[in-house]
Amino acid sequence: MTSPDPQAPRPAMPDTETVQTETARAHPTVRLKPKAEARAIRHGFPWVYADELVTDRRTQGLAPGALAVLEDDLRRPLGLVTVNNASKIIARMLDRDENAVIDQAWFAARLTRALALRERLYATPFYRLVHAEADGLPGVVIDRFGDTAVVQPNAAWAETHLDTLVAALVAVTGVAHVVKNGTGRARGLEGLPEDTQVLRGTVDAPIPVPMNGATYLADLMGGQKTGLFFDQRPNHAFAAGLAKGARVLDMFTHVGGFALAALAGGAQSALAVDASAPALALAEQGAAASGVADRFTTRQGDAFVVLETLGTEGAQFDMVICDPPAFAPAKPALEAGLRAYERLARLAAPLVAPGGYLVLCSCSHAADLASFRNASARGIGRGGRRAQLLHTGFAAPDHPMLLQLAESGYLKALFFRLDG
Amino acid sequence: MTSPDPQAPRPAMPDTETVQTETARAHPTVRLKPKAEARAIRHGFPWVYADELVTDRRTQGLAPGALAVLEDDLRRPLGLVTVNNASKIIARMLDRDENAVIDQAWFAARLTRALALRERLYATPFYRLVHAEADGLPGVVIDRFGDTAVVQPNAAWAETHLDTLVAALVAVTGVAHVVKNGTGRARGLEGLPEDTQVLRGTVDAPIPVPMNGATYLADLMGGQKTGLFFDQRPNHAFAAGLAKGARVLDMFTHVGGFALAALAGGAQSALAVDASAPALALAEQGAAASGVADRFTTRQGDAFVVLETLGTEGAQFDMVICDPPAFAPAKPALEAGLRAYERLARLAAPLVAPGGYLVLCSCSHAADLASFRNASARGIGRGGRRAQLLHTGFAAPDHPMLLQLAESGYLKALFFRLDG
Repeated sequence: MTSPDPQAPRPAMPDTETVQTETARAHPTVRLKPKAEARAIRHGFPWVYADELVTDRRTQGLAPGALAVLEDDLRRPLGLVTVNNASKIIARMLDRDENAVIDQAWFAARLTRALALRERLYATPFYRLVHAEADGLPGVVIDRFGDTAVVQPNAAWAETHLDTLVAALVAVTGVAHVVKNGTGRARGLEGLPEDTQVLRGTVDAPIPVPMNGATYLADLMGGQKTGLFFDQRPNHAFAAGLAKGARVLDMFTHVGGFALAALAGGAQSALAVDASAPALALAEQGAAASGVADRFTTRQGDAFVVLETLGTEGAQFDMVICDPPAFAPAKPALEAGLRAYERLARLAAPLVAPGGYLVLCSCSHAADLASFRNASARGIGRGGRRAQLLHTGFAAPDHPMLLQLAESGYLKALFFRLDG
Repeated sequence: MTSPDPQAPRPAMPDTETVQTETARAHPTVRLKPKAEARAIRHGFPWVYADELVTDRRTQGLAPGALAVLEDDLRRPLGLVTVNNASKIIARMLDRDENAVIDQAWFAARLTRALALRERLYATPFYRLVHAEADGLPGVVIDRFGDTAVVQPNAAWAETHLDTLVAALVAVTGVAHVVKNGTGRARGLEGLPEDTQVLRGTVDAPIPVPMNGATYLADLMGGQKTGLFFDQRPNHAFAAGLAKGARVLDMFTHVGGFALAALAGGAQSALAVDASAPALALAEQGAAASGVADRFTTRQGDAFVVLETLGTEGAQFDMVICDPPAFAPAKPALEAGLRAYERLARLAAPLVAPGGYLVLCSCSHAADLASFRNASARGIGRGGRRAQLLHTGFAAPDHPMLLQLAESGYLKALFFRLDG
């Protein structure tokens, strides 16, 4: 670009100027409304909500996942975003540099940075490698299981750039097998269809995952989410540290979550409960692989029913864990969700032997720590018990949070000791 | 007591009835005002505030630390409390059984229960043994350093029962040496004077404390609080897990807190800063005892001044930790305290090398997690950096919280990774 002649009259037509700018740029421009929070975005907030963006016909015509330059209402560029008119989060910040080129090198740089953290945190390559916005890849989740990676492209742009992303992933990590897991609530919010397939290599059997001294079996093709929840790793470890000699009840065990860690930590026995027979079958394989099958039993059933039955039987455990699915995934479900957490605590507390431990978890975005703690406290009280709170745990550090979204930390694990 | 004659006329004078009740009991009665929260106390809240109690002349005449039976406004007993007219917390619940006898066996039962948790948590006898209300001993803090215990009797009743408490402590734990540490803000709120002395055995040298692979030196007679902060143990451990090969700056290091743990975890070097020369001398002894003295240096000075100097020098570290004293110990200091936390973050962030780690701690009761996180976020932003939040840690589990006081969790440690 040559410098404009300072003597020449400045063009009066802003539209022309805009068109010129866009011609010079690789991408169309989208613009914040005057009232929108440009300041928050400048300070690192990664999203633009639909009511904050000027949605003229041109913006409405952008394909889901299209790239665009975001400007504030005074036409100052804020960065390169991806736009999805089908989502309440209409734009997500990809790069503060509005001239960034989203190619394999761009993905590789972000993946390299993400990998450096995980390699510092964990001795073996089993972890969440990319946790979406916080790792600079909005809506993208990647879990790593040794030489296999599971990619969740939960935002439209990640679908359109999937080949480039996967190429970078293979180059940076050296994984031989890549699964696309296109299930879950987040994709629905983006208007994306379900689609799960193997993109590279082969995945034909559950993968053994070493964690906290136990071995879990992760079914990457048929399991929940990406086959295993890495987010509970430090909470499993904390429970295991309390579990020596304990009789453990692990409700919503999935593939053996807390139970196998507790057994590896020296628990006397563990009863693992889940509604899913395939999950329990994997838990049993995990128990065998961990060398703890002789202390491990499972029971299939609805958690509330099983807890009531155990209560009627007068069963007692030294540690009871409840790690249910999200009862309050979003705000409309909050009140009902908190009642469900309270009920779970009320049914579980009486099963804890005097001086024993109760672990209550919530992975509900909508239930914040204080609400969940209060619901748990009410349930414990109504279950006829008093409690000390020993420890509050959150998601593992391979699930970092963008500081501007820190309120949204979804996973909480409360460790109680009940009265003697 | 003989049963009253059912034919006899019921005495009409409530005062007489009260006197009879009190004669039958070992202790005087104190009574909640009608508007007071008897329900909260029934549900486990451990305190009565001064404006909730009927403070007639008889109650006003109770000596600080006196025992009394607490009744609701309908004269139903709520439990045995200790009363201190000098404190805003005028009564503290000792036992739900209003007939409890506060003797050595009573103390021994509570200490035994507290000990069972710590023995489950830690392989060696170095921990907070009693954390006040949550361990059933209101206002009493006991830290254990092997065969030495430090007792903080921070409520009046603990002073009056100190001999019995110490006898039980020796009997339950077998410690040979007991220090009374009567310093600190809490005692002032109870109207108690400063008084530190050795009650049993001898304490004539700093005690080596094994923790997170390092060895700390705790000066139980001259140090801050009880000579060492056990509450940061898991946060030291988390930092150590990130520290391999790192250049570490540990601000407010006290006796080497984060620095020695990081060096034990493989840090390349650590610069430890504190305003206290005696604390730094202990830190250096700890570094020698930990075998890391060759990688450890200290600098005495005001933290803000040192941070500004390091900034001017362009110093860079792979991990910077700020673990200051409470800037906001109580509500009136909250705004100024949050500004101080923000300033600390602003000065520390530029010293973190690209992709490095920043650890910000607060032990302020008045600053809740969200306020502290927001102050930290503002400071990091004003320091010109962006951050991921990797981990939020609280006080170690040997510092349990009563569920009804869980809001008061004082210690927060935020682990950030800064932009590359």
